[in-house]
Amino acid sequence: MAKQKKTPRPKAITPKGFRDYFGHEVTERAEMLATIAGVYHRYGFDALESSAVETVEALGKFLPDVDRPNEGVFAWQEEDEAWLALRYDLTAPLARVYAQHRERLPTPYRRYTMGPVWRNEKPGPGRFRQFYQCDADTVGAPSVAADAEICAMLSDTLEAVGIPRGDYVVRVNNRKVLNGVFTSVTRGAGKNDIDAMSPSELREYREHELRGLKNDEILDAILRQLDKFDKVGAEGVRHLLTGGRNDKSGAFIEGVNLSDHMADGFVQFLQARRSSNSETLARLREILKFSAIGREGVDELEQIADLLAAQGYGPDRIVIDPSVVRGLGYYTGPVFEAELTFEILDEKGRPRQFGSVAGGGRYDDLVKRFTGQAVPATGVSIGVDRLLAALREKGRVSSQVQGPVVVTVMDRERMAEYQTMVAELRGAGIRAEVYLGNPKNFGNQLKYADKRASPVAVIVGTDEFDNDVVQIKDLILGAKIAENATLEEWKERPSQFEVPRNELVTKVQDILKAQA
Amino acid sequence: MAKQKKTPRPKAITPKGFRDYFGHEVTERAEMLATIAGVYHRYGFDALESSAVETVEALGKFLPDVDRPNEGVFAWQEEDEAWLALRYDLTAPLARVYAQHRERLPTPYRRYTMGPVWRNEKPGPGRFRQFYQCDADTVGAPSVAADAEICAMLSDTLEAVGIPRGDYVVRVNNRKVLNGVFTSVTRGAGKNDIDAMSPSELREYREHELRGLKNDEILDAILRQLDKFDKVGAEGVRHLLTGGRNDKSGAFIEGVNLSDHMADGFVQFLQARRSSNSETLARLREILKFSAIGREGVDELEQIADLLAAQGYGPDRIVIDPSVVRGLGYYTGPVFEAELTFEILDEKGRPRQFGSVAGGGRYDDLVKRFTGQAVPATGVSIGVDRLLAALREKGRVSSQVQGPVVVTVMDRERMAEYQTMVAELRGAGIRAEVYLGNPKNFGNQLKYADKRASPVAVIVGTDEFDNDVVQIKDLILGAKIAENATLEEWKERPSQFEVPRNELVTKVQDILKAQA
Repeated sequence: MAKQKKTPRPKAITPKGFRDYFGHEVTERAEMLATIAGVYHRYGFDALESSAVETVEALGKFLPDVDRPNEGVFAWQEEDEAWLALRYDLTAPLARVYAQHRERLPTPYRRYTMGPVWRNEKPGPGRFRQFYQCDADTVGAPSVAADAEICAMLSDTLEAVGIPRGDYVVRVNNRKVLNGVFTSVTRGAGKNDIDAMSPSELREYREHELRGLKNDEILDAILRQLDKFDKVGAEGVRHLLTGGRNDKSGAFIEGVNLSDHMADGFVQFLQARRSSNSETLARLREILKFSAIGREGVDELEQIADLLAAQGYGPDRIVIDPSVVRGLGYYTGPVFEAELTFEILDEKGRPRQFGSVAGGGRYDDLVKRFTGQAVPATGVSIGVDRLLAALREKGRVSSQVQGPVVVTVMDRERMAEYQTMVAELRGAGIRAEVYLGNPKNFGNQLKYADKRASPVAVIVGTDEFDNDVVQIKDLILGAKIAENATLEEWKERPSQFEVPRNELVTKVQDILKAQA
Repeated sequence: MAKQKKTPRPKAITPKGFRDYFGHEVTERAEMLATIAGVYHRYGFDALESSAVETVEALGKFLPDVDRPNEGVFAWQEEDEAWLALRYDLTAPLARVYAQHRERLPTPYRRYTMGPVWRNEKPGPGRFRQFYQCDADTVGAPSVAADAEICAMLSDTLEAVGIPRGDYVVRVNNRKVLNGVFTSVTRGAGKNDIDAMSPSELREYREHELRGLKNDEILDAILRQLDKFDKVGAEGVRHLLTGGRNDKSGAFIEGVNLSDHMADGFVQFLQARRSSNSETLARLREILKFSAIGREGVDELEQIADLLAAQGYGPDRIVIDPSVVRGLGYYTGPVFEAELTFEILDEKGRPRQFGSVAGGGRYDDLVKRFTGQAVPATGVSIGVDRLLAALREKGRVSSQVQGPVVVTVMDRERMAEYQTMVAELRGAGIRAEVYLGNPKNFGNQLKYADKRASPVAVIVGTDEFDNDVVQIKDLILGAKIAENATLEEWKERPSQFEVPRNELVTKVQDILKAQA
């Protein structure tokens, strides 16, 4: 016979940068998301699940940290020539959804959404190309009360999932303040003394100031450098804003080439946080005395702090912090970031703060892309995987998983009877399964129970069937005894029990209770 | 000034065949999936969430109903030339996951998974290119006990989500039986009288019979026609297997061009169901007396029925039905389908049975693609959206949604006090929000509450603040009264109440209780 040409076997691997999640990893995330959804729901936010696929046109180019356009997304061309792409965040789709359905949606529209997003970036350790986001946004509410609400809700959410008060802080800044610093610094103070302007001059100046910012590409570059304050400190940022700096590995990072005078202005601003919100606000007013937009931003920050304080969200939970920048260019007002303040050990065993797990802010222009009309919007995005990692650090989600009770099979002709046993256990709410592999080697069955982290094994052979009894093995106790018990303890605390068949469920319940 | 050239605004639309899901649509699905996950978990199945993106190579060409290869998926080429694609079901990824991680997974591996899948098909009414699946599979268990377990679990699942016993049936068939019919019919009976064969002849014959089937492309075409039995009936299938038929619209559907004799054999088989499982099994043995593989299939069906009956899953829930075909070519043993048996009205108001909401079967060759070793596997996939639609039909999920309590804003300077009210309501577990739009027009606030389906509005203006009271408006009662009350009733049953500020929460609770 002629030998057939074989096609080579496909490789069983996830694409580079993608991974699978197993068992407990899936359920603990699902539980956390359900808790978060509960808080959002109670705040009046409605669920939304938008299509994972969008037109490239609708997604736009709002991806952070991507210098080349059209980079960063997974995109493909359809037969009708349209380009489609996987969403890279949950904010761009919200803008599209609101623009598309605004006639029938309530205004303001509060919505939450959770799900995977995809980024076509170079994967690295712990950096995946598919990950979860969990967002809440309010569209159509211009008032800073909407921003304050998001901050309060974020605070409630962190506590609901298990981050105790004192272990987190929501830091709030305002992009208008930052823009004010930008104009003050780049134009030089004095020239723009708004207090000396007539109302019409003032209006024209403010329009000019705003327009200037939007068109100015350098702002994005500056934002990216300011955003590194937490990592590289004041001196580091100063170098990044001017001539550049060498990073830890010795590589040279190019700077933005601002003058020293300008860089000083920004660094002064980043360090404007004082020991109380009112002192920080006073310091900001001092820095921003020549910028109308900057003063507007400070006023908003004051309103947010007052609103939150009146509801009991004091500076132990929410603080004004000018060093919060948020890299994204689309923010137009308040920005905020939730930071976990407890220390963990990094890969090299050094203590460091856990850092940011959520962030967001006001973006008034995203919907305008579609409709031409500015629609105020503000929202927050929780980094689900980082928050889960934090909860694991704090022992708030159990890393230990209890597997099912395993009913072993001694006589494969009596499978229906084994199945009836697991059905009874399940009927009592106990997770249980019958061994479905080849039952010939009993050792394999116990190894299987071990791999499944089973708390209890049930063993019923011919003798047991004849005598209408079952053997129940406490696998947790058995393992403990095997590890460190004396012979006396071994005898006193048997880990295997013979009970009448009709006591199967109650005995298993007793053992599970004792293990808990 | 020179007019700047504008780029046209992007269109705010989902790509063709995609849609968004809002509010209740999202949460009712999430609740149903959580219920299903609960049943699967209790059966010992572990959660798995595999990557949504796979290599095209790993996905293979198992997509049903697609004639041209590489059709049916959304795929794109990476910079490194690799082709990636969105998963089109949850079974192909399971085969990849098991092959990739088999060293550390338990055997048998029971897993469940739920999430969207994507199909690059022509969209139609109610037919979307992204939809949810919810699968449970057991990999590595060759015994039909695994198939029986899946059928029992499917039955439990349907009842858990709210389909009462009697409103569904799980119909079971066996691909081996179908293959037996295929060889009997295509070769003609008599020649293959296996009872007259020696053991070695028998073995050779069975191998030949199996190999013949796998290589035979016509089987897939026949399967697709047999699968239409529910829709077009016996005569319809007979025409589709022979010369073709005209469908309702008058269009001619080409046939498979079998001989009449062959078509008769298949149609006879489709109609082999009798009034009890034992009679059906007897009828199948009669039809298949000349096929070893067919008899093996009948034996398996008998074992499954016996196992299930012994556990109390009688023919009121699970029946043997030879007309269950399942279009997919990859099934190798038992196949099953859950059908809802109650009638609904179709688009034209005609009563029809709701039909299939879940299906699955045994597929022993999917993992082999990767490893070269056959790994037995069996599983079920629930059509989440169809099942939800069924529950809506039965009134098992409420189509009525209760919105949040809306605290209206009369005095925007006192926002913090309004926020404190909603915080108190939330603290008592009540969904509540403050109106965040422009508060100037009070009518808009009540319209908003209406659009949000709010049960209660809270109204507090300067007078109320001064007197330390709040106005609470029962919007459900108010709407009822407005609709059909007499003046007397109107007076007797006020829908707006003034209560002391500190009774806000208890009064709202009372109203919500009265509405429930």
